[in-house]
Amino acid sequence: MLSEFSLIDRYFAQRARKNTRRAALGIGDDCALIAPAAGEMLAVSTDMLVEGRHFLPDVDPRALGHKALAVNLSDLAAMGAAPLGFTLAFALPKPREDWLEAFSNGLFELADRHGCELIGGDTTAGPLNLCITVFGSVRQNDALRRDAAQPGDDIWVSGTPGDARAGLGVLRGEWPQVPIDRADLAHFRHALEYPEPRVALGLALAGIARAALDVSDGLAGDLLHILERSHVNAEINVDALPLSAALARLPRAQQLQCALAGGDDYELCFTAAQAQRGAVEAAAQQAGERVTRIGTITSSDTARSPVAPAITWRDASGAPLNLTLQGFDHFHAD
Amino acid sequence: MLSEFSLIDRYFAQRARKNTRRAALGIGDDCALIAPAAGEMLAVSTDMLVEGRHFLPDVDPRALGHKALAVNLSDLAAMGAAPLGFTLAFALPKPREDWLEAFSNGLFELADRHGCELIGGDTTAGPLNLCITVFGSVRQNDALRRDAAQPGDDIWVSGTPGDARAGLGVLRGEWPQVPIDRADLAHFRHALEYPEPRVALGLALAGIARAALDVSDGLAGDLLHILERSHVNAEINVDALPLSAALARLPRAQQLQCALAGGDDYELCFTAAQAQRGAVEAAAQQAGERVTRIGTITSSDTARSPVAPAITWRDASGAPLNLTLQGFDHFHAD
Repeated sequence: MLSEFSLIDRYFAQRARKNTRRAALGIGDDCALIAPAAGEMLAVSTDMLVEGRHFLPDVDPRALGHKALAVNLSDLAAMGAAPLGFTLAFALPKPREDWLEAFSNGLFELADRHGCELIGGDTTAGPLNLCITVFGSVRQNDALRRDAAQPGDDIWVSGTPGDARAGLGVLRGEWPQVPIDRADLAHFRHALEYPEPRVALGLALAGIARAALDVSDGLAGDLLHILERSHVNAEINVDALPLSAALARLPRAQQLQCALAGGDDYELCFTAAQAQRGAVEAAAQQAGERVTRIGTITSSDTARSPVAPAITWRDASGAPLNLTLQGFDHFHAD
Repeated sequence: MLSEFSLIDRYFAQRARKNTRRAALGIGDDCALIAPAAGEMLAVSTDMLVEGRHFLPDVDPRALGHKALAVNLSDLAAMGAAPLGFTLAFALPKPREDWLEAFSNGLFELADRHGCELIGGDTTAGPLNLCITVFGSVRQNDALRRDAAQPGDDIWVSGTPGDARAGLGVLRGEWPQVPIDRADLAHFRHALEYPEPRVALGLALAGIARAALDVSDGLAGDLLHILERSHVNAEINVDALPLSAALARLPRAQQLQCALAGGDDYELCFTAAQAQRGAVEAAAQQAGERVTRIGTITSSDTARSPVAPAITWRDASGAPLNLTLQGFDHFHAD
């Protein structure tokens, strides 16, 4: 039986050392040394995942390893930054070899795919807790900020939001009266457990899009962050929302709840000038991602006073819809 | 009663935004943007602190805020890096306003003193857990690494190691038969709760010292990390260990246990060429810190084979001592 230290070393440090390219000094010293590309800034984001809050106690450790890094890479994607490396701090009640192996496999499979190196970390005994801080490189003027949306901008979303929330709804048994196909369930569950950070899309959009963020807490709620920081409002064409074939087979109420108020999709929501439509489409094609125009940024009537920003919901004919979105209620509810 | 979000915003985000100088983009976007000084590298370190493991449940929150950042700044000091900023991720069972106020006061008092900005973070509900990632700036060739010690180097230590461990021993009631003065107890306890990261000393030593680390797990154990990474051995003159007046009043057994096997001091242990003695003394004077020569780096007989490095303990006359150090047993025991 290996000691705790040997286990950590085998599954993390050894594997990290093998692949050191970007960090001048990685695991094993007091600090790692890293630098953004010449003339660029380091983009930094940190996320903490807690058992019972962000994942269930019986989560597949491979999926957890994937998702813990994916949510952080998604923050880089939302800035248009290229991944460089990450630190991993975690508390574990009791290290189990099979758990660590599966967790590290899920983690490194995604990390390697994005050329994102483990450059440092910390491990301790304690209630299960994962804290990843991720580093990317981005030209300061190309960074996709939340405060850069302008009236007249198109509002875009990548992928098909709502699938992860549908997965959670099914796993929780929220819709017992709705029959769901086994293949659709597998699709939803995969979306929930293995979200794919839109790194290539974020990179391709840097310098083209204006404002962007990743949808972790639901499209409606997250879009409000852009509106608030940019002092603008928005109109969304609900009928333009891109739905997966699986989600389109659920009743309309579930479709809207999942696509607008569900979280954990990690799709990008971004704005761009109308003149950039061709460039946005080309960027998406280059990244191999689907993007859909779902609305327009409008002026805030109250740009000077601190009034809450607003989203107007419309159908395809332009008629206003009175949507009552159920409060955000997935694991990220904090 | 403020909501959880408002509390976090009041005690952390608002205060962080007021002082933004170094980060091009701080709290409130998907990522913070930060860059090392021109021509320098970013030094990165992360530490996770867990209740019951790194601090007692009844810890003074102001001391906890101080210490959570201090242990990270100490890692920068040990690299000779200048603090730039940090991210703070924490899980809290239930936010209490008085707790958050005291914690944030302890945290920002130290952060402001070192010009180290809060640039991002994450908060969630969960068992109390603090994860800080700290960023500094250092010229790559001046960084104080663990693998740079050379035979013939002097071994130095800053301050008076052992006081924090004595504080823990007294708080735990380990030495009921040893009478301890009230002023000495206050001294020990302050060392344990408010360790002072040796940032100025680390900066002054960059380019002068060879290898360095900060003593978090006990001088003997931590020195082994330098020896291991540098493929060398060491001789330590135990009688040269700098002891505080308070520690010197404890029995010799406790003195050695605390100074050599105790942790949480966050003093720097470093090596430097003998020709640099004057420069080291001058650097310490510039930083306003005490440094003491306690030994010498020696050749490893087995540079080629992976044999464990060794420390030879001697007294002032040069006679070898057979020290049996009690295993490292403070909260950091992982």
